[in-house]
Amino acid sequence: MALLFNKIAIVGVGMIGGSIALAAKKRKIIREIVGIDIDKKSLDEAKTLKVIDYAVNLKSKKIVLSKIKLVIIATPVRSIVQVVRKLLPLLDRGTIITDTGSVKGSVVSGINSILPKGIFFIGGHPIAGSELSGVESAYGDLFIGTKTILTPTVKSNHFSFKKVKQFWERIGSTVVLMTPKEHDKVFAAISHLPHLLAFSLVNTLSKRNFKNQNPFDYAGGGFKDFTRIAQSNPAMWHDIVFENKEEILNSINCFMSTLEKIKGLIKKGKGAKIKKEFFKAQRIRSKLS
Amino acid sequence: MALLFNKIAIVGVGMIGGSIALAAKKRKIIREIVGIDIDKKSLDEAKTLKVIDYAVNLKSKKIVLSKIKLVIIATPVRSIVQVVRKLLPLLDRGTIITDTGSVKGSVVSGINSILPKGIFFIGGHPIAGSELSGVESAYGDLFIGTKTILTPTVKSNHFSFKKVKQFWERIGSTVVLMTPKEHDKVFAAISHLPHLLAFSLVNTLSKRNFKNQNPFDYAGGGFKDFTRIAQSNPAMWHDIVFENKEEILNSINCFMSTLEKIKGLIKKGKGAKIKKEFFKAQRIRSKLS
Repeated sequence: MALLFNKIAIVGVGMIGGSIALAAKKRKIIREIVGIDIDKKSLDEAKTLKVIDYAVNLKSKKIVLSKIKLVIIATPVRSIVQVVRKLLPLLDRGTIITDTGSVKGSVVSGINSILPKGIFFIGGHPIAGSELSGVESAYGDLFIGTKTILTPTVKSNHFSFKKVKQFWERIGSTVVLMTPKEHDKVFAAISHLPHLLAFSLVNTLSKRNFKNQNPFDYAGGGFKDFTRIAQSNPAMWHDIVFENKEEILNSINCFMSTLEKIKGLIKKGKGAKIKKEFFKAQRIRSKLS
Repeated sequence: MALLFNKIAIVGVGMIGGSIALAAKKRKIIREIVGIDIDKKSLDEAKTLKVIDYAVNLKSKKIVLSKIKLVIIATPVRSIVQVVRKLLPLLDRGTIITDTGSVKGSVVSGINSILPKGIFFIGGHPIAGSELSGVESAYGDLFIGTKTILTPTVKSNHFSFKKVKQFWERIGSTVVLMTPKEHDKVFAAISHLPHLLAFSLVNTLSKRNFKNQNPFDYAGGGFKDFTRIAQSNPAMWHDIVFENKEEILNSINCFMSTLEKIKGLIKKGKGAKIKKEFFKAQRIRSKLS
């Protein structure tokens, strides 16, 4: 299979950035990878683990980048625009930039507003990852069988979009197109809301008084599955929450009205209606693997 | 290891009842098992799968039970008291009754109020099972490493309690004692509430309008883990919800106030406080496996 890019840069060598690096090397679609980060430890670890070929500290005063064809920003979502702003003067004409942020509206509009002519940006979001973080959790098959959302705009140009699309496909992901707005509405519901509910459930239990009992001692498989995502990186989720504030608040309100309805049915003893709600949820959920 | 009971009866040969049967046979702590159910298909299947030795249909007009030493009621929680009422005239003096219901308050008081002298009841609740149901999902190692709550009362007598405790221990479970009230408060929080949240989340997403997109197409591992319990048996959860109504409403209210707080922090842009909430949840959840 043909090489897609000679040299690429990945900013943020954590779980996602590291996995992209490993995947791209494994499929031989790139030749060299420059890892860029503000954390010396992550960079050292990424080099030791041979996830990247060169390490560049984003904090250093003099950064030189040469002949980079693709820059993938895999940092926490709130820093993506700042990172791009910092790197832009160092990039060659024709460079393609993409990202992996879980929010697209603010990221895409922020980058589009500072992008010079001749440099192209395609927003991206691979639906992959786990509650784990750090480059030590990275692995090259992470994207196999996943979907990656791309949100091209007028600033993307067709050739660049095609190359980024190929990149994701070659590492095992199926590319889906959305507008940034569509993306943020869908992911507020299917991803951001469940994370907030998981964090909230754990905290609800921890602050209640159960006298002699610690309820967490009786957590079964259901509770553990349900709250697994409450182990997710708090700093990362802080960013997501504020970058997608409106859609998230909207999703919380929709959820609360469903829960209010359920509560009302229980209170009034509406057994048939409650059963209908449970059956509906069971039917829908059972279609997912 | 010594035999615990010669002949036992299990009422409700589903996932839990069937697993108890398989576990007890595997550890050779009983000799014979009578399976009792209202569903002919389940009984036939349980016999075919050699989960039980004899099948008795609870619907048949003439039921004969002889020399049963232990009766385990593993039916949906709302039918437990009725089942006991129906079986009582058929049981020998000295028989021990226990159950596996997820709610203890109403079950224990209901049974205690009809229990004749010389028959003993110990409420039980094994923290095991999954979103699967039916005897075809039963397996004999289900209880290994689990906890089983027992809620003995004045109607339990010490010898009977000891035998039931040994039974659970011999099939791999650790026994924990609680009062029925303690049990229902703890499980409303750690089990019943998460199930209601999972059902509610799936229904919230299904009723919203995402135009061209189906959010479930983008469900990642986090969402799937979170909503796995939304596949649980609706009839069983209907029963639990109404048998533990007060504690469940209480738990929903506590959860709603946490979620309201989180929502307020997002709305007001309180980043440091949001991060603190997320860190707290992460720290607590990470202690569980």
